[in-house]
Amino acid sequence: MRNPEGARIPPGRRIALDAMGGDDAPVVPVAAARRAAAIHGLDVVLVGDPAAMHAAGLPAEGSGVAIAPAADVIGMDEEAALAVRARPEASIRVAIGLLAAGRADAVVSAGSTGATMAAALLGVGRVRGIRRPVLAAVLPFIAQAGTAAGAGGPEGARFGAVLVDAGASSDVQPEALVAYARMGIAYARVLGVDAPRVGLLNVGGERGKGNELARAAYGLLSELVEFVGNVEPRAVLTGAVDVVATDGFTGNVFLKTVEAVGARAFGIQANRAAPVGGPGAAVLLGVAGPVLVAHGAADADELVAALLMADRVATSGMVDRLGAVL
Amino acid sequence: MRNPEGARIPPGRRIALDAMGGDDAPVVPVAAARRAAAIHGLDVVLVGDPAAMHAAGLPAEGSGVAIAPAADVIGMDEEAALAVRARPEASIRVAIGLLAAGRADAVVSAGSTGATMAAALLGVGRVRGIRRPVLAAVLPFIAQAGTAAGAGGPEGARFGAVLVDAGASSDVQPEALVAYARMGIAYARVLGVDAPRVGLLNVGGERGKGNELARAAYGLLSELVEFVGNVEPRAVLTGAVDVVATDGFTGNVFLKTVEAVGARAFGIQANRAAPVGGPGAAVLLGVAGPVLVAHGAADADELVAALLMADRVATSGMVDRLGAVL
Repeated sequence: MRNPEGARIPPGRRIALDAMGGDDAPVVPVAAARRAAAIHGLDVVLVGDPAAMHAAGLPAEGSGVAIAPAADVIGMDEEAALAVRARPEASIRVAIGLLAAGRADAVVSAGSTGATMAAALLGVGRVRGIRRPVLAAVLPFIAQAGTAAGAGGPEGARFGAVLVDAGASSDVQPEALVAYARMGIAYARVLGVDAPRVGLLNVGGERGKGNELARAAYGLLSELVEFVGNVEPRAVLTGAVDVVATDGFTGNVFLKTVEAVGARAFGIQANRAAPVGGPGAAVLLGVAGPVLVAHGAADADELVAALLMADRVATSGMVDRLGAVL
Repeated sequence: MRNPEGARIPPGRRIALDAMGGDDAPVVPVAAARRAAAIHGLDVVLVGDPAAMHAAGLPAEGSGVAIAPAADVIGMDEEAALAVRARPEASIRVAIGLLAAGRADAVVSAGSTGATMAAALLGVGRVRGIRRPVLAAVLPFIAQAGTAAGAGGPEGARFGAVLVDAGASSDVQPEALVAYARMGIAYARVLGVDAPRVGLLNVGGERGKGNELARAAYGLLSELVEFVGNVEPRAVLTGAVDVVATDGFTGNVFLKTVEAVGARAFGIQANRAAPVGGPGAAVLLGVAGPVLVAHGAADADELVAALLMADRVATSGMVDRLGAVL
């Protein structure tokens, strides 16, 4: 079965999109759902306020876009864990509920990361063996002078480093970074990297550099064959590794700095406008189902990229395999 | 007394420049010393191997450039504390010795930051009341679209935020960030900011965000009238504050990320090519004398800026005043 543009429609796979999440919701999510269905043949369920979605240009039945009503919304500045527990009608709760019930195969939201994480933990739980899920963003490689695509590799196979943790947990033990690295390796494989190399984000290349966490993590990470040592920010951004392990505080500062400086330089939004083939969103690794968080300022094309990535993660079986690698 | 270009020669103030520090030493330091003397009337003492300095184009006597011989050099990759203790003839040890003996009023090195810190602690010690000196770099503001100089303020008065700690101490207690903020305020005043605003580097604006260190430091920093709250990387780089307090691990990752992304975008080298009037180097705040560290890749113009900044710090009496604010 093919849609008018000729893209293959996947056999029954369906992505739930939080229509109420993001700076310009539901306009941007509705536009993204239309485009993902029309151009890429994705089956998208928009979750939110039906009246608002209709006003935002919801397409007619049979377009590949369905809706699931949700009467409530959790805002960006609310205390996520409390709000998620208290409000079962919130769009992100309903979207995760579709995933839990097997009525969707993945969830995408451009709303609050904390609320999405809390709703996912409440609704679908964790992969067995994973203590705490992690936020995995992809940092684009900054091309070396004179080259177009960073450190090399086949076109489309390497477009950036997987940053774990990009902001889920600020205070962690060194052991957590090993789990992050393992999850990051699994995700990098989904992104097309055959033999991912793992680095530890640090302030110097030599062993012994860094804070207590980094020094302790270095020893533990050394047991992974994929581990290549410490990496400084420049090395990460020029393609020295495929997976970067760090705590969520340092990782989030790193990500936000790349975004702040890069946005003016290259149109980089590490978590947003990834190159062709790249993810349009960060993934909650370790949650027992594909759940992706797009940037709050994502435009419709970036949300389409996020929907395509969600489809790719759902198809890959990565979530099932995460339990096996940990 | 004026030099041929008409610049005022300061009354007897003298800057010791480590001629052996930096990627292209002693060529770049010798060129910088010549230029600083000829154009700005600075009195510079080049410290290093006389034969190598002569080969690099040392000017004739009476040019405002003197030399102090040093037979040894500490490399960038050596274990700083050990090397500094073991090698009294190293150029950075001799340069700091001039400061300690009152034969120089400030020291500049483009060599190892760790070695410079260790030599300074050994040779001149700390300001009374300061437990551990801090590395203060200046992060340039990234101009908002349509403006030329960031968040405003008189030309030359505000050109970037003082980052403390930029990399001296990776593991610290929350109380340290208050001391860093106080030192940063004193330095910002030297840089021409009348009423410095202090922010805490964090992953969100609201109180309660961040890791344990940040959450604890927030409460302590709140007792400073200059404290305006948490700041995310974008806010720092667009001029929301004049002083940014953080631990040296996070600060160094932040600084290096700005450099890595910014170098390709704006020619930004946070620690190097500052705007006109800005420092050309990071300052070791809390050391009992003006000691500045330039980027290892600094060119001669950047080292001249560092020498001028060293002169400004020496003239300001900041070091003496630091003891009073802590």
